[in-house]
Amino acid sequence: MPSIRRERVLSDLRQLAKFGQYKTGVHRPTFSADDMAARQWLVDQLSSAGLSTSIDGIGNVYGCHEPGKRLVLAGSHIESQNYAGWLDGALGVIYALEALRAIKEDKAFSHAGVDVVGFADEEGHFIQFLGSRSFVNALSDAEIDRSRNQTTGEGLRKALSKAGLAGKTRVHLDPSRYEAYFEGHIEQGDFLDNEGLQIGIVTAIVAIWQYKICVVGEQNHAGTTSMARRRDAGASLIRLLTTIEERFKNVAGPRTVWTTGKVEFSPGASHIIPGRAEALLQFRDTELPTLIRLEQELMGAVSHANQSERCEIEITRTNASEPCLMNEKLQGLLSAAARNRAPEAFVKLPSGAGHDAQWLAPLLPTAMLFVPSIGGISHHWAENTSENDIVLGAQVFTDAIAALLAFRG
Amino acid sequence: MPSIRRERVLSDLRQLAKFGQYKTGVHRPTFSADDMAARQWLVDQLSSAGLSTSIDGIGNVYGCHEPGKRLVLAGSHIESQNYAGWLDGALGVIYALEALRAIKEDKAFSHAGVDVVGFADEEGHFIQFLGSRSFVNALSDAEIDRSRNQTTGEGLRKALSKAGLAGKTRVHLDPSRYEAYFEGHIEQGDFLDNEGLQIGIVTAIVAIWQYKICVVGEQNHAGTTSMARRRDAGASLIRLLTTIEERFKNVAGPRTVWTTGKVEFSPGASHIIPGRAEALLQFRDTELPTLIRLEQELMGAVSHANQSERCEIEITRTNASEPCLMNEKLQGLLSAAARNRAPEAFVKLPSGAGHDAQWLAPLLPTAMLFVPSIGGISHHWAENTSENDIVLGAQVFTDAIAALLAFRG
Repeated sequence: MPSIRRERVLSDLRQLAKFGQYKTGVHRPTFSADDMAARQWLVDQLSSAGLSTSIDGIGNVYGCHEPGKRLVLAGSHIESQNYAGWLDGALGVIYALEALRAIKEDKAFSHAGVDVVGFADEEGHFIQFLGSRSFVNALSDAEIDRSRNQTTGEGLRKALSKAGLAGKTRVHLDPSRYEAYFEGHIEQGDFLDNEGLQIGIVTAIVAIWQYKICVVGEQNHAGTTSMARRRDAGASLIRLLTTIEERFKNVAGPRTVWTTGKVEFSPGASHIIPGRAEALLQFRDTELPTLIRLEQELMGAVSHANQSERCEIEITRTNASEPCLMNEKLQGLLSAAARNRAPEAFVKLPSGAGHDAQWLAPLLPTAMLFVPSIGGISHHWAENTSENDIVLGAQVFTDAIAALLAFRG
Repeated sequence: MPSIRRERVLSDLRQLAKFGQYKTGVHRPTFSADDMAARQWLVDQLSSAGLSTSIDGIGNVYGCHEPGKRLVLAGSHIESQNYAGWLDGALGVIYALEALRAIKEDKAFSHAGVDVVGFADEEGHFIQFLGSRSFVNALSDAEIDRSRNQTTGEGLRKALSKAGLAGKTRVHLDPSRYEAYFEGHIEQGDFLDNEGLQIGIVTAIVAIWQYKICVVGEQNHAGTTSMARRRDAGASLIRLLTTIEERFKNVAGPRTVWTTGKVEFSPGASHIIPGRAEALLQFRDTELPTLIRLEQELMGAVSHANQSERCEIEITRTNASEPCLMNEKLQGLLSAAARNRAPEAFVKLPSGAGHDAQWLAPLLPTAMLFVPSIGGISHHWAENTSENDIVLGAQVFTDAIAALLAFRG
């Protein structure tokens, strides 16, 4: 079987982490000088490994074998969140690079190969999953035209131009070329770390359903307006959120998560009764029936509040993705590899975060492998994974790909 | 008895409303060109009425009789909130001006007079009650040095300088000079208007107790962090505010009001569990025992939450004024005058808003008279009072002052 090289994996990750190094993490926002230098570094590695490699018009690094081989596609994203971890995205890219090399070095696999992709802007500095959406042809030019950097406000077209990508073709996936797509990633949660496990095999990527709640009352003087006369949008929203919390607890699944990430009262002064109050709420689960039950409870709570409250409440669904199931056969290959390398230390689990893989899954059999995040830390420069877990993950990842490519059925 | 002149009162109010006119209201922020022009207009009116008048180093317009008379002080403030009503503040100043003139015109009152004050910045563009606090010597130069305009950020010293007030002395009240302080004002609430009443005699100005609640949890990924593991500062704050609401309902008095005017989650994104959440909360009442009970419930709720929640909650009392009782003898004079002019249409009531009068009350017997606000509208350009109510108020106001000044005990 193809064998990965421990020091090569760790050294690649450390080299990649130098682009935009920040404390023990990296600051490598999409299309920044550091991000583009990192992409060029990946081009060089893939070219050295014999792939025909380029950066396309949306910033995706794509390295391809010559035609005629039995191929798997593997990868993840290169950029980081602002001042975030060294492994988020980078790990999956290096796993793909190492699988490519290990399989190339094994003479029994001369019929096969791993193409590698380093997507752009999975983290959404401009548009979440920018690169993978472009790759599967689910991104319009109009959307590119109107998008801006969430931090700096710079237009996406301008950023592409500054990065030297203006006018370059956007490369799209040819699904007939590949047996499968594999992506490695840190867990970002703390389940594996808490349970003392080393490998997670992803069963599904959660769906995210997201809502905006607007409550309109009457802005008024906090001293001269009696409690009976008030139409306090803030107080109505607090009552509604409390009811939603109670209802959600009754219908949530074992792994459902829900979050009210933003609440804002207007005008937001201590001596003024809020005339308007808004909340952003989301829930995530892999089970469609659970998602539907949660939405029913949410709408029921809002509808009830519109009768009992003296304010008008409007709820808008701003986003609703579908749960994305990982391919069962590929899960089986990852499980077999994990059972071989770490018999007691692997588990199947859903991904609570979104990943580039969810855009590939409708077009290719898709699999994801997780390694532990120490303390579950994510999107922070302190994010980390032990060297042993990193190396074990790379081997299991490569083993599963090799198992698929060895199979000549 | 001294008699006010209906057309003079209305014409004065209309003239004053021209300074910074905005729709049917005024935009006359403190020390703006319009505010200073209005102050100069008041100086001219008071000078014409025979008072020695000037604008002092904090912008207060102060008109004084020669020594030797039996005197009452009356007034209110000149500036408005941003884009607000034409009567808030202005009404009390014009009532004082009219009382001055009506009493001067009555030969039976040659021994007596009304001094008039037009305070600066009761509305708190820089510091709430700036002028009245300076007048009663409760404002330090250091506080002036560090204060800025809430809207524009301009320093108070700079604004005073631009208004031509730099280096001028701040005039302080000599309490031995006056029998009493009288202030007229619109109610701002809707009690008089709803009840079809024309005159409100203020029993007390509410105390305002104000708090900042900070909840510190752990900022984390909204997808990968299980519900069990979360320390969600936003969710903890919502639960706490719900408990506070329930507790307050049990101990509030009939006129207690409480408001959560601001709630803010940090970082405030839909996909991030809030690591920090803050609320500004206040309650108002005229009864000290009620205020104390409310604070006990508040502290009890926070203390309980600190045991039951997985976040740390800190509460800070940012402000606690005392209820300010109006002088009972003066309330009696206002009641007698109201009974005479509008037998069935007056009532005693507390003021839910703060007023300059509360800074005078510790030093002088103090009284306040309210006239109705149509629909209870306040701090908005649509604020209004019927002409009949305005004129009736001016007469009752003057009657009560005359009754006090007529009394030679």
